[in-house]
Amino acid sequence: MARIEHDFLGEKELPDDVYYGIQTLRALENFHITGIPIGKERFFVQALGYVKKAAAMANRDLGALDPVVAEHIILASDRVINGDFDDQFLSDLIQGGAGTSVNMNANEVIANVALDMMGKKKGEYKYCHPNNHVNCSQSTNDAYPTAFRIALINKLTAYSESIKQLAESFGVKGEEFKNVLKMGRTQLQDAVPMSLGDEFRAFATNLNEELSRIEDSKRLISEINMGATAIGTGVNAPEGYAGLVTKYLRDVTGLELVLAGDLIEATYDTGAYVQLSGVLKRTAVKISKICNDLRLLSSGPRAGLNEINLPPMQPGSSIMPGKVNPVIPEVVNQTAFYVIGADLMVTLGAEGGQLQLNVMEPVISMALFTSITYMTNACNTLREKCVVGITANAEHTRNMVMGSIGIVTQLNPIIGYEQSAAIAREALETGKSVHDLAVKEKQLLTQEKWDEIFTFENMIHPKFINK
Amino acid sequence: MARIEHDFLGEKELPDDVYYGIQTLRALENFHITGIPIGKERFFVQALGYVKKAAAMANRDLGALDPVVAEHIILASDRVINGDFDDQFLSDLIQGGAGTSVNMNANEVIANVALDMMGKKKGEYKYCHPNNHVNCSQSTNDAYPTAFRIALINKLTAYSESIKQLAESFGVKGEEFKNVLKMGRTQLQDAVPMSLGDEFRAFATNLNEELSRIEDSKRLISEINMGATAIGTGVNAPEGYAGLVTKYLRDVTGLELVLAGDLIEATYDTGAYVQLSGVLKRTAVKISKICNDLRLLSSGPRAGLNEINLPPMQPGSSIMPGKVNPVIPEVVNQTAFYVIGADLMVTLGAEGGQLQLNVMEPVISMALFTSITYMTNACNTLREKCVVGITANAEHTRNMVMGSIGIVTQLNPIIGYEQSAAIAREALETGKSVHDLAVKEKQLLTQEKWDEIFTFENMIHPKFINK
Amino acid sequence: MARIEHDFLGEKELPDDVYYGIQTLRALENFHITGIPIGKERFFVQALGYVKKAAAMANRDLGALDPVVAEHIILASDRVINGDFDDQFLSDLIQGGAGTSVNMNANEVIANVALDMMGKKKGEYKYCHPNNHVNCSQSTNDAYPTAFRIALINKLTAYSESIKQLAESFGVKGEEFKNVLKMGRTQLQDAVPMSLGDEFRAFATNLNEELSRIEDSKRLISEINMGATAIGTGVNAPEGYAGLVTKYLRDVTGLELVLAGDLIEATYDTGAYVQLSGVLKRTAVKISKICNDLRLLSSGPRAGLNEINLPPMQPGSSIMPGKVNPVIPEVVNQTAFYVIGADLMVTLGAEGGQLQLNVMEPVISMALFTSITYMTNACNTLREKCVVGITANAEHTRNMVMGSIGIVTQLNPIIGYEQSAAIAREALETGKSVHDLAVKEKQLLTQEKWDEIFTFENMIHPKFINK
Amino acid sequence: MARIEHDFLGEKELPDDVYYGIQTLRALENFHITGIPIGKERFFVQALGYVKKAAAMANRDLGALDPVVAEHIILASDRVINGDFDDQFLSDLIQGGAGTSVNMNANEVIANVALDMMGKKKGEYKYCHPNNHVNCSQSTNDAYPTAFRIALINKLTAYSESIKQLAESFGVKGEEFKNVLKMGRTQLQDAVPMSLGDEFRAFATNLNEELSRIEDSKRLISEINMGATAIGTGVNAPEGYAGLVTKYLRDVTGLELVLAGDLIEATYDTGAYVQLSGVLKRTAVKISKICNDLRLLSSGPRAGLNEINLPPMQPGSSIMPGKVNPVIPEVVNQTAFYVIGADLMVTLGAEGGQLQLNVMEPVISMALFTSITYMTNACNTLREKCVVGITANAEHTRNMVMGSIGIVTQLNPIIGYEQSAAIAREALETGKSVHDLAVKEKQLLTQEKWDEIFTFENMIHPKFINK
Repeated sequence: MARIEHDFLGEKELPDDVYYGIQTLRALENFHITGIPIGKERFFVQALGYVKKAAAMANRDLGALDPVVAEHIILASDRVINGDFDDQFLSDLIQGGAGTSVNMNANEVIANVALDMMGKKKGEYKYCHPNNHVNCSQSTNDAYPTAFRIALINKLTAYSESIKQLAESFGVKGEEFKNVLKMGRTQLQDAVPMSLGDEFRAFATNLNEELSRIEDSKRLISEINMGATAIGTGVNAPEGYAGLVTKYLRDVTGLELVLAGDLIEATYDTGAYVQLSGVLKRTAVKISKICNDLRLLSSGPRAGLNEINLPPMQPGSSIMPGKVNPVIPEVVNQTAFYVIGADLMVTLGAEGGQLQLNVMEPVISMALFTSITYMTNACNTLREKCVVGITANAEHTRNMVMGSIGIVTQLNPIIGYEQSAAIAREALETGKSVHDLAVKEKQLLTQEKWDEIFTFENMIHPKFINK
Repeated sequence: MARIEHDFLGEKELPDDVYYGIQTLRALENFHITGIPIGKERFFVQALGYVKKAAAMANRDLGALDPVVAEHIILASDRVINGDFDDQFLSDLIQGGAGTSVNMNANEVIANVALDMMGKKKGEYKYCHPNNHVNCSQSTNDAYPTAFRIALINKLTAYSESIKQLAESFGVKGEEFKNVLKMGRTQLQDAVPMSLGDEFRAFATNLNEELSRIEDSKRLISEINMGATAIGTGVNAPEGYAGLVTKYLRDVTGLELVLAGDLIEATYDTGAYVQLSGVLKRTAVKISKICNDLRLLSSGPRAGLNEINLPPMQPGSSIMPGKVNPVIPEVVNQTAFYVIGADLMVTLGAEGGQLQLNVMEPVISMALFTSITYMTNACNTLREKCVVGITANAEHTRNMVMGSIGIVTQLNPIIGYEQSAAIAREALETGKSVHDLAVKEKQLLTQEKWDEIFTFENMIHPKFINK
Repeated sequence: MARIEHDFLGEKELPDDVYYGIQTLRALENFHITGIPIGKERFFVQALGYVKKAAAMANRDLGALDPVVAEHIILASDRVINGDFDDQFLSDLIQGGAGTSVNMNANEVIANVALDMMGKKKGEYKYCHPNNHVNCSQSTNDAYPTAFRIALINKLTAYSESIKQLAESFGVKGEEFKNVLKMGRTQLQDAVPMSLGDEFRAFATNLNEELSRIEDSKRLISEINMGATAIGTGVNAPEGYAGLVTKYLRDVTGLELVLAGDLIEATYDTGAYVQLSGVLKRTAVKISKICNDLRLLSSGPRAGLNEINLPPMQPGSSIMPGKVNPVIPEVVNQTAFYVIGADLMVTLGAEGGQLQLNVMEPVISMALFTSITYMTNACNTLREKCVVGITANAEHTRNMVMGSIGIVTQLNPIIGYEQSAAIAREALETGKSVHDLAVKEKQLLTQEKWDEIFTFENMIHPKFINK
Repeated sequence: MARIEHDFLGEKELPDDVYYGIQTLRALENFHITGIPIGKERFFVQALGYVKKAAAMANRDLGALDPVVAEHIILASDRVINGDFDDQFLSDLIQGGAGTSVNMNANEVIANVALDMMGKKKGEYKYCHPNNHVNCSQSTNDAYPTAFRIALINKLTAYSESIKQLAESFGVKGEEFKNVLKMGRTQLQDAVPMSLGDEFRAFATNLNEELSRIEDSKRLISEINMGATAIGTGVNAPEGYAGLVTKYLRDVTGLELVLAGDLIEATYDTGAYVQLSGVLKRTAVKISKICNDLRLLSSGPRAGLNEINLPPMQPGSSIMPGKVNPVIPEVVNQTAFYVIGADLMVTLGAEGGQLQLNVMEPVISMALFTSITYMTNACNTLREKCVVGITANAEHTRNMVMGSIGIVTQLNPIIGYEQSAAIAREALETGKSVHDLAVKEKQLLTQEKWDEIFTFENMIHPKFINK
């Protein structure tokens, strides 16, 4: 069984059991780039439901919609919010039309669900029309970005939690390793001693800073343009609508949404996406650096640094027996590269906006949605399957410190930079230890002074010691 | 029913009907970043089958594999090549381990399919072992990149065809529009007249150049490192194996594969991927420019350039009646942005290689696979749903030419640059036409000379006309 | 005349009149990538002076430096702050060594200037030593990034002012053009009417938002790590030094500098640079979009949109007489591309950090310094040489509106989306006007209703009009 | 003393001793983004001279220029080619106008130099006019990109040589280190043994491949569009001019320049720049990877890998005595990041082209010129100041191999993957050596077999050894 729908370009046959309509069908025919339907983005479909619900409430209050029609749109939107119709959202993640297909997909599904509830047949749009009723007082150009922003905020909440927990797991290790002495390294060269615990706590510090950045982004993303309609002049929207729909949208989402002050600008501006993408990239860069460090510190086991052990997750080679690789940091590095590349897609999309609209928002949304999802997955993976199981090779790291030349820096205030440099040079050339050269051969300081300087505590948190 | 498998990290239970084994299961547990299994990349699974088949043939000839075992591996590989087990390839598109999980996935599936064929139970690896037999004389570090390269070449063939057809469709329009006079524009300012046909033929020229670039890339990609095993020294591979397996691989794939001259280098080098990605990006940049032009030329209909009409594909607005948007070029622009961003992922992945291996190959493969797929889709979409249906507004474009100031350039050789500039300036300030100023008011040339210069043919393909 | 200096790698001859020393000379020999010396970055040299001055003050107070030596370092630093020795700062903008060459350049110049003031000869470092005295209680790893951050903040102040003034100039035009009716466009297609003034005011809004983002960045950049010394453990710095030097640095710079809470992390973290670069990129993207719009709106003069006129700055062609191009927006677009590319350099540099230090800071500083300088120049150029002189073609833009099909949207609430769409379609096909079709032919509304809807005010700031 | 010049926008005063004219002066006033004048690009100024010379020759032959005027233009161009007037080329590296300012700068300088030679005063353009004579039969849109391409080819020759020499220096080290046994590493984990010589030879192989890529690029860049004039229709150029000027340009430059087949396309196409930039990026990625490896292999000296020693170039720390850092690889890494960022500028510029011209060519030229210069400098620096002086710690690397677990892979063909894995696991847990476990404890093979397998030659170039 099939029904016929028409739009101003003609008519199309639709299977009778589908809730989407002719414009969704056209989008399906027109766009098949990624093969991934927007229905996979739970939070986005939910947010479209929120937008349509709040709009119906405001339209009802302002007399722009018949109360009965409005009520059915609200009920239908609730079911979309609940996820009952995700499989009816079929537009490709990347589409032309600046989101029109997605917005119409929502309009059509909600109209037909409402018609169902009203006891009408799907497609009997005179009772509840996708454009005239569900989309009442809206344009794709306000409904789509508003839904997009709501979805982003909700996704960021889960993402932020994954960063927080990852930071905490590094913090726990920081405490666990606080008495592990190791060589600090700058430019991959031995520098001065430190605590492995401090190194891990610094990872925690590094990531915790991201939480405020994410909050900053959420705040910028929370500025919406409902009531702008086509280009921000509010054409076709009743007086008072913009404020009212924003209030209702705050109510139904529980989010601190704010109406933009300049709706013309807000309708084309993609600055908040660029900013958010920059923050995601920043975090990706940090996590990539951390994973590089974890891989370096666990290199070996015999011909590498071998300071820490990552939990073995899987055999590391199809040919080298017993080899175990740092596969979790590796997959996280690659996720970070994805996010950095996706940031460029956002940049290009944002730069491609013209005049009163940015038609590239779908690729921006694709990039941000996937980046947040992948990063959330990566952070959780890194914590669960790697960080919590890391152990230290404390004896080995301590031996490296005491055998190093870098500890000569500790002698600077006692014997001066130039004499220290001379000892360092000699140690390097002869293979002798700093201790033997400084205390025994050259007698530049006493064993007692040496012991005072090279206590565990003083190496990890050095006090300034005078001659 | 379930079976137990073990590796050196312990044991795991597997459902008895699955063909993959414990290492694939571990990969499944460890990596869930994108949620997209490699089994979705038909050409990649096929290529893994080719590699395993050719390796078994070479191992059989060299006595490294029992002929019966080899024969069953070959038969099992054929079924994988045919696509019978795509649903058993479950590793996430982005994984750690430099492809080990993908290679082991192939080894395990083929071993169990072979066991099936031998009348053994799945998991009875003493008869056919994923590592000892299926992976015989191989490492992930040669098998994985070789399969990746074969998959790329096959994907590029379809992609190249889509570019070729798209170029042809522009060529057809170039012929169709050859007598349409229009204003050429530089820096968005009116320049000198040209033929719309020349503009479309130039699009064809522009894209046809890509075909040679793609062939260049295929040639670089065709260099493989079978026989390198772990790091290029060929440890564990029998003498003569590298050459023989390459020959067999050429036979089974029908591709012009070449063994790399320096296997140490070939095992870590990702230069061919960077080069290919650069070529994809170059084409994306060109297609994006073309789509920008199509959108600009079709802008309007009344307050834009309105030189051409794109076929209307779907209603263009949920609020503005009758509006039709250039949705197909728009989706293609966005696909181009995806490819440009994905190129950065490839760059980052390539730069992240260390010492004897590049562990970031999975993200490189993800980026290249999706870019090629999306671009192929985009090119086909652009041709089918846009280019073939474009029409010209020839009268309008001709009127714009004759009313323009830019045609004054044609007078340069007759009246000199400075006098031409003066007329241009006056035309701009007064709104008068160049013809009226030059011929009537100032009598700088006769009407006859004017007519000689401004024939249709001479505007489109100007001849140099002396005073 | 020449003097000989030595370090632990040997000795070198220096012209006697130069204030830099052997390590600067080595840097000169080692690094010649860009050919641009850091002395060209006035704010950076100044900031190095501030750091050395504040360090000397703190060292003096804490007894780490002899008061007389400290005082001469302070005086010498003041001269560096004043710009007297910019020509002595010769290290290439891109160098290896994580800034060591730049820090030593400062140490050497200040030591020799101090020696001059003490009546000693250059190179008599026992009286004032680059390392033991000028660099006392410091490492490159805290002194260099601190100076870098101070320089950034000061550069951002000028930059921010240029954005603010540019926004203001758009605001002025917004007011000037508020009564100019024009067609709004989405997806380059005619949408609904708007005021040209609103379009320009939106540019102002768009840019004014950047001012808060820049302030956010400045706040993050203000976190410094003085006292961290080599890796953040504070080795070789006297107790209380970190807090004291930060206080002095606040005093001498007048900036709200804050000591980082986790000095281990702060010593390698480049998050604030990534964030700042992201903000610069965001602004660049916005300005590029605005320039694209300016170029589009001024396209023509006869075969383009021709809505506005940019002030003519130079003849636009060596061959086409009278052609004037939008050269100022063009150069600004290109500057934006520079900034977007430079952001990638920052990203790569930040990702390349390892363990306790990011050795790639010089390329980060090169990218940020040039981006800020170029953007400041571009904003000032755009304002002075373009925006302030823009004029509108009000009659032409009004005619485009009234002749457009897009005004049919205004009829939606009266005659419904579907009937409006039918009229739009017919207008497109027949070339007739919306007015003729709606009022005369189809009599869907009265002339009075039409007039009520299509007042100037209602087109620009539409009120919702019921049937 | 000053002279007055005018163009159609008005008049300007110029110092009498300058060779440039009013349009260069306007460019100077309009564009000051980078502060770097194009005169710094020797090869570009030279190439502008070549173009003007060849054009004058062709114009002379075709009767478009008076022979005497043509001769003086040729002589003046020769002086520009020789570099006598580089200081008169003042346009900023980044400009608006698609190169018009640069082309006019050349036209003006050559006109005035010619006037000098004719015994006329500067500015007496009736005798030799920048537009009518020097620019005869040309447009910026063919002259500028042609000069740009000639400059690129000449710069690439020096660049290619620097790559070749760098590769050679790695090759020399490959030979020198061929008997140094070391551990190969994949994923930073110990893999199987190899020769340090093979590792360095692979660097040479890796870079030598770039030479063919650069030649490919040069070939694409060699396609020029002289005779296209404004948009490719050849308006204002005499019949036969395009072919003739191309021939003359081949003669005067000695380069294999080819006239494009489709001049409309060639006038806007930037594909060759994108391709070249991609090749530069590819090389940068490779060199960055190599520098990462050099830094890793030289890490230590005591708490790192310490396999090789880089020549010490400068003291590595202002605080840590005796520390020497890998400053040369570091600066080269950063140069690579510059090139990768600059590639994005090229991409953005190329994507920003519209209709018949790409107005963003100046930023493309800036990016390519600086990238080639910086990379040439970086390659020479890396060779001279690092590679040629690298030494190996052969005893240390050999000890790491024999103490490693990774050598167990060599036992695979004898004892099977699973038993090898068990030994590897036990070695890791107990700290015992593979030899002790395999030969002594478990007696899985005899000492003789062991010795047969672990010969130096067999570890470096393993032969397959059967049970």
